[in-house]
Amino acid sequence: MTDKRPTIRQKGWFAVLIVLLLASTQVWAQWNAREEIRLPDLPGFLTLKCDFHMHTVFSDGQVWPPVRVEEAWREGLDAIAITDHIEYQPHSKDVSTDFTRSYELAAGRAKELNIILIRGAEITKGEPPGHFNALFLDDIAAVNKADYKEAVREAVRQGAFVFWNHPGWKQPGNRSVWYSQQDTLYRLGLLKGLEVVNSDTYYPEVFGWCLEKKLTVLGNSDVHAPIAMEYDVAHGQRRPITLVFAKKRDAESIREALAAGRTAVLWNGLLIGQEAFLRPLFERSIEVKTPEVRLKGKNPAYMQVYNASDVDYHLAAAGQVSGISFPDSVDLWAGRTVLLRLRASEAGLGDRKEVALPYVVRNALVKPGEGLHAELRVKVIFEE
Amino acid sequence: MTDKRPTIRQKGWFAVLIVLLLASTQVWAQWNAREEIRLPDLPGFLTLKCDFHMHTVFSDGQVWPPVRVEEAWREGLDAIAITDHIEYQPHSKDVSTDFTRSYELAAGRAKELNIILIRGAEITKGEPPGHFNALFLDDIAAVNKADYKEAVREAVRQGAFVFWNHPGWKQPGNRSVWYSQQDTLYRLGLLKGLEVVNSDTYYPEVFGWCLEKKLTVLGNSDVHAPIAMEYDVAHGQRRPITLVFAKKRDAESIREALAAGRTAVLWNGLLIGQEAFLRPLFERSIEVKTPEVRLKGKNPAYMQVYNASDVDYHLAAAGQVSGISFPDSVDLWAGRTVLLRLRASEAGLGDRKEVALPYVVRNALVKPGEGLHAELRVKVIFEE
Amino acid sequence: MTDKRPTIRQKGWFAVLIVLLLASTQVWAQWNAREEIRLPDLPGFLTLKCDFHMHTVFSDGQVWPPVRVEEAWREGLDAIAITDHIEYQPHSKDVSTDFTRSYELAAGRAKELNIILIRGAEITKGEPPGHFNALFLDDIAAVNKADYKEAVREAVRQGAFVFWNHPGWKQPGNRSVWYSQQDTLYRLGLLKGLEVVNSDTYYPEVFGWCLEKKLTVLGNSDVHAPIAMEYDVAHGQRRPITLVFAKKRDAESIREALAAGRTAVLWNGLLIGQEAFLRPLFERSIEVKTPEVRLKGKNPAYMQVYNASDVDYHLAAAGQVSGISFPDSVDLWAGRTVLLRLRASEAGLGDRKEVALPYVVRNALVKPGEGLHAELRVKVIFEE
Amino acid sequence: MTDKRPTIRQKGWFAVLIVLLLASTQVWAQWNAREEIRLPDLPGFLTLKCDFHMHTVFSDGQVWPPVRVEEAWREGLDAIAITDHIEYQPHSKDVSTDFTRSYELAAGRAKELNIILIRGAEITKGEPPGHFNALFLDDIAAVNKADYKEAVREAVRQGAFVFWNHPGWKQPGNRSVWYSQQDTLYRLGLLKGLEVVNSDTYYPEVFGWCLEKKLTVLGNSDVHAPIAMEYDVAHGQRRPITLVFAKKRDAESIREALAAGRTAVLWNGLLIGQEAFLRPLFERSIEVKTPEVRLKGKNPAYMQVYNASDVDYHLAAAGQVSGISFPDSVDLWAGRTVLLRLRASEAGLGDRKEVALPYVVRNALVKPGEGLHAELRVKVIFEE
Repeated sequence: MTDKRPTIRQKGWFAVLIVLLLASTQVWAQWNAREEIRLPDLPGFLTLKCDFHMHTVFSDGQVWPPVRVEEAWREGLDAIAITDHIEYQPHSKDVSTDFTRSYELAAGRAKELNIILIRGAEITKGEPPGHFNALFLDDIAAVNKADYKEAVREAVRQGAFVFWNHPGWKQPGNRSVWYSQQDTLYRLGLLKGLEVVNSDTYYPEVFGWCLEKKLTVLGNSDVHAPIAMEYDVAHGQRRPITLVFAKKRDAESIREALAAGRTAVLWNGLLIGQEAFLRPLFERSIEVKTPEVRLKGKNPAYMQVYNASDVDYHLAAAGQVSGISFPDSVDLWAGRTVLLRLRASEAGLGDRKEVALPYVVRNALVKPGEGLHAELRVKVIFEE
Repeated sequence: MTDKRPTIRQKGWFAVLIVLLLASTQVWAQWNAREEIRLPDLPGFLTLKCDFHMHTVFSDGQVWPPVRVEEAWREGLDAIAITDHIEYQPHSKDVSTDFTRSYELAAGRAKELNIILIRGAEITKGEPPGHFNALFLDDIAAVNKADYKEAVREAVRQGAFVFWNHPGWKQPGNRSVWYSQQDTLYRLGLLKGLEVVNSDTYYPEVFGWCLEKKLTVLGNSDVHAPIAMEYDVAHGQRRPITLVFAKKRDAESIREALAAGRTAVLWNGLLIGQEAFLRPLFERSIEVKTPEVRLKGKNPAYMQVYNASDVDYHLAAAGQVSGISFPDSVDLWAGRTVLLRLRASEAGLGDRKEVALPYVVRNALVKPGEGLHAELRVKVIFEE
Repeated sequence: MTDKRPTIRQKGWFAVLIVLLLASTQVWAQWNAREEIRLPDLPGFLTLKCDFHMHTVFSDGQVWPPVRVEEAWREGLDAIAITDHIEYQPHSKDVSTDFTRSYELAAGRAKELNIILIRGAEITKGEPPGHFNALFLDDIAAVNKADYKEAVREAVRQGAFVFWNHPGWKQPGNRSVWYSQQDTLYRLGLLKGLEVVNSDTYYPEVFGWCLEKKLTVLGNSDVHAPIAMEYDVAHGQRRPITLVFAKKRDAESIREALAAGRTAVLWNGLLIGQEAFLRPLFERSIEVKTPEVRLKGKNPAYMQVYNASDVDYHLAAAGQVSGISFPDSVDLWAGRTVLLRLRASEAGLGDRKEVALPYVVRNALVKPGEGLHAELRVKVIFEE
Repeated sequence: MTDKRPTIRQKGWFAVLIVLLLASTQVWAQWNAREEIRLPDLPGFLTLKCDFHMHTVFSDGQVWPPVRVEEAWREGLDAIAITDHIEYQPHSKDVSTDFTRSYELAAGRAKELNIILIRGAEITKGEPPGHFNALFLDDIAAVNKADYKEAVREAVRQGAFVFWNHPGWKQPGNRSVWYSQQDTLYRLGLLKGLEVVNSDTYYPEVFGWCLEKKLTVLGNSDVHAPIAMEYDVAHGQRRPITLVFAKKRDAESIREALAAGRTAVLWNGLLIGQEAFLRPLFERSIEVKTPEVRLKGKNPAYMQVYNASDVDYHLAAAGQVSGISFPDSVDLWAGRTVLLRLRASEAGLGDRKEVALPYVVRNALVKPGEGLHAELRVKVIFEE
């Protein structure tokens, strides 16, 4: 049993110390850095990673505001909105009820760490209509109105982007209902987005409403405790993220993209969004490393596909190709290359062929319950 | 204590199954893929990952030959040479002594997996002169000569690239000695490379000889057991790798690059090689994400640097810059962005300045015990 | 952002070196040790961890025999049988066909590492009757008979324990069939056990046959490649293990326990076996850390249960208890303590009560598809 | 390349769902449990894991008080003290300055989770004398006195246990100085303990003072941010812990043990404390699994030692044993069994011998810079 403990022969102490130092720092310091989320940009747009729903001790959260900025920086986010409840301040016996404080206390750290901090708040009404987040507010106190419609109207008057939070929460069977109040806000043009994912829950029917009604999809953490207490960061679990496809990396571009509906959701390895966004996201993530594959008789040959992104893609075959058999399912792991076993399925094939293997990317949902259809292309050379 | 177990509301079974399937496959199937090693290519050259020294049951190794190909594929290598001992076949009571068999048995799997398999062998003499690997052999049996010089000469006659293995092995204090036999081979132009790293050992003095004598640096595993039994793969330890900077990804280009000395070694997080190769490797690995930083009075500001490669870089300050203070040491973790705290160090500075922060990359050795000197560039804007 | 890199103030170098040494060794050396599998012993019996099915280059495996011993030692096993095929030796062009060699070559390492090595072989016939392993053979060559019945009879004559391997392999739909050949061997008293788990497959119907016919349950790896190439050891996946409840830790006691049917299977977190064994295994694994819980009105209180074993247990409620509500499902993670939320479910309860919460341990299968019924006991004190 | 994805044949959906459910829950839910720290109890005493120094938003911390309880529960602690600064309340613009609130807000969660919560506070004076923690206070406000001596005296009057925090903080070179103020408190019998470890720093000279002056050793986190932001929990880093050897698991027993000096510190894999405590802690952690080893001629044989605790022990040989050679260093990894290679070192030995191999446990410091001396015992049988 060989023990491969690294050794540096001769020249001794200097070199030894280098190795020891490397070893010692690796264990303790790595986490104190920002883990970038590798996702391709889209043609003409940057892919920004955002979370637009979270709390601090200034409503019912459990952390001091700058903590939210540091958590976001470490997790590779570009932008966050702290959205403390307006109508619900259970710590008011001990903590100031001034609506401006959580933003003010976090702003300095956000500037230092280059995190885009958006001033927001959660309009917190009973069910229905439930809760709404308003982003890009100027004056939160002015939104503190008893009537939900007046509150939302004031937010929009200030230029805010308003979306409906965790639809389905407190509903029977957690099933979302499009109440008349939602419809009213929607028809008035005040409601612009829906949380398709909130925290640990995905609402497929709400995704359907987004597609039908042309509302912006959002996926947010709604985190109250320190993030590592709600998500198993140690084992790679991450909060839901709203991917915003923005022209630039700044608050104004995020506002424009939200208004234009250029978003998708990344949650627990699922991508949820319009085909127009998920298709380039997928196609720019992967690379066929063997553009040409040679098949000899009935012997198999292997096509290799690399996934350069940090999202695993899970594919299922979605059709057949005459003359060739290929795998029923393929898992394209993040940062890895996988094999696709190809085999000539019949005699008498021509000698070469451009092949497009039809697959559905099961975890890239372009409609509720429906994955993205995509093709893996390869040139097959048939030999005798 | 909230439990964020993912839930999909409504639309039920189909969606639930997706999540469960994702979860179940993740745990078990990921390792059965190729983990790519992210390292930038150099201008005009591909960065190929190679291991030119390993054994099978056909000499004193413990695995069947195709295992070496599969291990290499999974670890992200491009090329390997199986180099069973010519003069040492301790399994001969049970296993064929035919020198051609280990290559032949591995070749099919190499073709399937697109691994470049180089026919090699280990010329195994007493100390001195010790052991030599010969790569690109046509006829291994012909190299089986008692005299070391004749053996090497025959290898070179066949067009082989010959290097000295684990110099220092069995030497007093593991200290390498440049024996007259080595010198003879070198002066005859037969010896072209040296193992600067073998398995768990780095020989700094041998790296010095490579630089002086213009010999090619190599770092190889010399693995005998299954790779996961010699390297702690589960905790991220990897075998030594010879990085070959080749014009194309094929055997002939590797041969050309080895002859031209275009290599470096990656071992336990250390890069070892000529400055000409390590400088672009480092510079193409990192990206300053904040090209402009604003310093206001004595307040600190933060520069952010991203390392897109899979190698951590450990930097120590190597000088001063007038008017600004910056960290003594910086760890640029693989796949992460880190902060550099900057601060104006004196009054009366101009209002903006292109700054090159001088660092030495301690784990990129361009000479024995000497790291690569490199600069991190940023524009600093001084505000009142 | 605080950086908690460990520091030792003063007294300097000696202390600093200690920390650095600790750090450096941790990363590289840990895996080169034996990872014990924590499972309780049963009353009167040791719980031995065994794998009775594996191959080497001497049949169609890919490793040299001592590798199997080292793998087993590292994974915490107590006993293994190398069971190379008798009738199938595809490496015969290159490797000796002497049936005694794989055992002989592994025996020295087994003695050194204190692994119980059992001489075995795989009787390899067509389907049906398929393959059988014979353990505790004296003369493997004598078992090399064309007729399956004669081969098995000879094995048993030598005192071997014979079991049927991977039933279902090559069967339509992988569905096991109890062929007349199996029945013949069974009625002759030659067949004593069945592989309920082989490699990546669990055969529930075969488990049913074991219970009906009083045959010994076995779960084995059937590993051919290096173990880390077939099981994702880096992510905690382990081979199937046959748990043998033996009087002592030696070969003779294993033979006695196999004959007596005192075994269970551990595979991918599932325990499979008779209730008589799984019940004490479960009960001795867990400990209620809060023997007394106080419930005040409708406020919840928490019972804490610790699982000292290395097997996670997944429980589902299997009934109700009047006066108290408790969780529908509980995951008792290995090495962890979890909370069970209790609440008084009605008024007018007495002031204290010994409660036995009824659960089914879903991953401890005592019949096909049926988990072990077990109770978690706690004393509840009801306060006003 | 075999893919060992678990499969259950037949009986289908029920069984399949079990496996899928197991897989899905494993990934996400495990962290939401308490990870027990396995350390043996001492004869007559329980080994309680405690942290007596931490902050919340009520002084300069960044979390709401119950967070401290949940963090402690998850990390396997038994007791904590929240010790917000008395004289330093930088959040006073936004947060109540009532000294009783952090304890009150955390107490309910502590009771639910069975965490012993001790009412404490940090007396925060300039340097010297610096900061002191007082545990078991009745009336924190009464301790708010300008004079440090009066403040400490009042704390002790209330029955508090008082210790000096982070000695060396803000001192030149971080070197602790025993100022006259410390000496005064010590001579008055008011000062009973010293933080030998605070957060990321170990003060060896302070450990020496504890031994000389019979003061209690303490190691605490002094955590301000969420714990996972200060310690790399994802990579196994843990806060410093004060091990308290108490007669029972309750606050009163902790108070008695602190007063009696029955503590040790566990920090980054180092144990620091009196030999009287570290010796049984070590000896009860390990088990020689091969009580008898047979040496034949000059052949090596292997002794196996299991470490059942969660602390790695790093041993260096501390002497020789006539007739036998044994390893210079041994790493006894937590939860693992390791090999010690033994060899007869000379001829003419008797036939058997009880051997005590002398080692020093380098990471169990019984004095500054001095490890615990311990012996590993085995019976060696010498064969011809």
